[in-house]
Amino acid sequence: MGTAVVALGGGHGLSASLSALRLMTHQITAIVTVADDGGSSGRLRDELDVLPPGDLRMALSALCDDSEWGRLWRDLLQHRFTSEGDLDRHAVGNLLIVALWELLDDTVAGLDWVGKLLGARGRVLPMASVPLSIEADMVVGQDQFTVRGQSLVASTPGHVESLRLIPSDPPACAEAVDAVINADWVILGPGSWFSSVMPHLLVPQLREALLTTTAKRCLTLNLSMHGTETFGMSAADHLRALAKHAPTLRIDAILADPSAIDDADDLIAASGLLGAQVLFRQVRRGDGSARHDPLRLAAAYQDVFDRFLGDVGTVSP
Amino acid sequence: MGTAVVALGGGHGLSASLSALRLMTHQITAIVTVADDGGSSGRLRDELDVLPPGDLRMALSALCDDSEWGRLWRDLLQHRFTSEGDLDRHAVGNLLIVALWELLDDTVAGLDWVGKLLGARGRVLPMASVPLSIEADMVVGQDQFTVRGQSLVASTPGHVESLRLIPSDPPACAEAVDAVINADWVILGPGSWFSSVMPHLLVPQLREALLTTTAKRCLTLNLSMHGTETFGMSAADHLRALAKHAPTLRIDAILADPSAIDDADDLIAASGLLGAQVLFRQVRRGDGSARHDPLRLAAAYQDVFDRFLGDVGTVSP
Repeated sequence: MGTAVVALGGGHGLSASLSALRLMTHQITAIVTVADDGGSSGRLRDELDVLPPGDLRMALSALCDDSEWGRLWRDLLQHRFTSEGDLDRHAVGNLLIVALWELLDDTVAGLDWVGKLLGARGRVLPMASVPLSIEADMVVGQDQFTVRGQSLVASTPGHVESLRLIPSDPPACAEAVDAVINADWVILGPGSWFSSVMPHLLVPQLREALLTTTAKRCLTLNLSMHGTETFGMSAADHLRALAKHAPTLRIDAILADPSAIDDADDLIAASGLLGAQVLFRQVRRGDGSARHDPLRLAAAYQDVFDRFLGDVGTVSP
Repeated sequence: MGTAVVALGGGHGLSASLSALRLMTHQITAIVTVADDGGSSGRLRDELDVLPPGDLRMALSALCDDSEWGRLWRDLLQHRFTSEGDLDRHAVGNLLIVALWELLDDTVAGLDWVGKLLGARGRVLPMASVPLSIEADMVVGQDQFTVRGQSLVASTPGHVESLRLIPSDPPACAEAVDAVINADWVILGPGSWFSSVMPHLLVPQLREALLTTTAKRCLTLNLSMHGTETFGMSAADHLRALAKHAPTLRIDAILADPSAIDDADDLIAASGLLGAQVLFRQVRRGDGSARHDPLRLAAAYQDVFDRFLGDVGTVSP
């Protein structure tokens, strides 16, 4: 039992969200970007013609059972080889996931087996059934240019004007679409805004599910607004970029850490574009880093869920 | 409970033995050669400075639990990548074992975790704690030369005059030595005679344990005498080569398939060098291949064990 939550994103941001959600419910579905083209994932994608497994591996690891068994296999999946040879920087979990895909010829079944190995709480799914590329029109000063590839989009300084997927009409993962439709809550972010958070809205069937689901929607903002791909963008600019690419998307709650917000009034104004209420909560770790604290983030999600409890289920006494 | 059996060898021969023994007892310890320098194992050994994992992987796979779970992870461990890139021909289980060694910094613990993953019956241990090389003095016609490396020894046509390990005094795996000392039965072979079966007798502490254990000793002969490294050797020649390298070794039972023996009288004569009785049993598969049938081999081992039952335990009614 528990609240059925779908978390969308990729990389460290999604892992942070899942590390919090696993404290609250067992009904978790993570839907993960599959546009990575760098590092171990990029090499596997090139060499074996498979989905990039890295963000899927990280999400599964975040959901592992907190037992000797679960932690051991999580640590193994996260382990990277270091050498001067072929295996250098490959994450073991990436190799394991890809091998299961080859063995079973079934993306979802392969991920479910890794979930069983880890005793994972919940399920991890790809946002699309085929590897994707991200393409961005960017502006620097007077220059406009097009950048292709998640790793380049994430590392090229400049302002992202618009974002596309290649192919532009990829098949969504059917189980992911179903999870969004049947969720109580859908959570977007935190994460790299253009390369991990927004791509989900560009997969047509998934976008449709996100726009039409009866689930409540929460947007979790980043703790640092100054990643390379969002350099110079305020928190409000993040919302405007989202609204520009999905004008009919309605958000119920926006979760923001006050220490990450320069102009709260502007943020609240921009939240109106999405029809959202903003909740300010301390969700940053005590060390001042740009990383979410799992317990604080879980407590903040609990506040968010409780605020809308009457709308999604029975009010508790 | 059950008979405590130690099986020594490597490669397909050891797997055949383990596939039979798992039908008879749960108290199995496999002690595996670690001199492989070819294929996936050889590349990992070179790149990461680890024990060659391939024969250990095969032994673990042979002991997997016969359930959906055990078979799935066995199939994954045995799966090999195929590509035109870095991962081509690497076995997934080799990568997994090596990664566990790096993570845990403990060879035996890493193998035990793979055993747990597979629900393996019994335990798989390396014969030594360091990677080994095999060196053989070989004769072809009038020429004598020295060949170094398991893959070269196994593939160079010629007669092996003598066999050495490099280093010559490697540390044995302590748990392997204990298993030999505490066994009811120790089984040598089948397998590549010079590169998988005999190397165990060249590891000083393991040799001492094999010579002094109170366990009964069984030698299982190959179904084909005509591997490259034993070309032209009769079954009796195999025993003579063994006796030459371990003159004080006593064997209780020699298990031979009659279809693989050209000269039974000569074999029986040579068995005297080792103090052994020869049991002739059909252990070959029905397809006529040079592969052991697990059920027939298990039944043959049962005959061997029963014949010596009064010596190692209580006679059953």
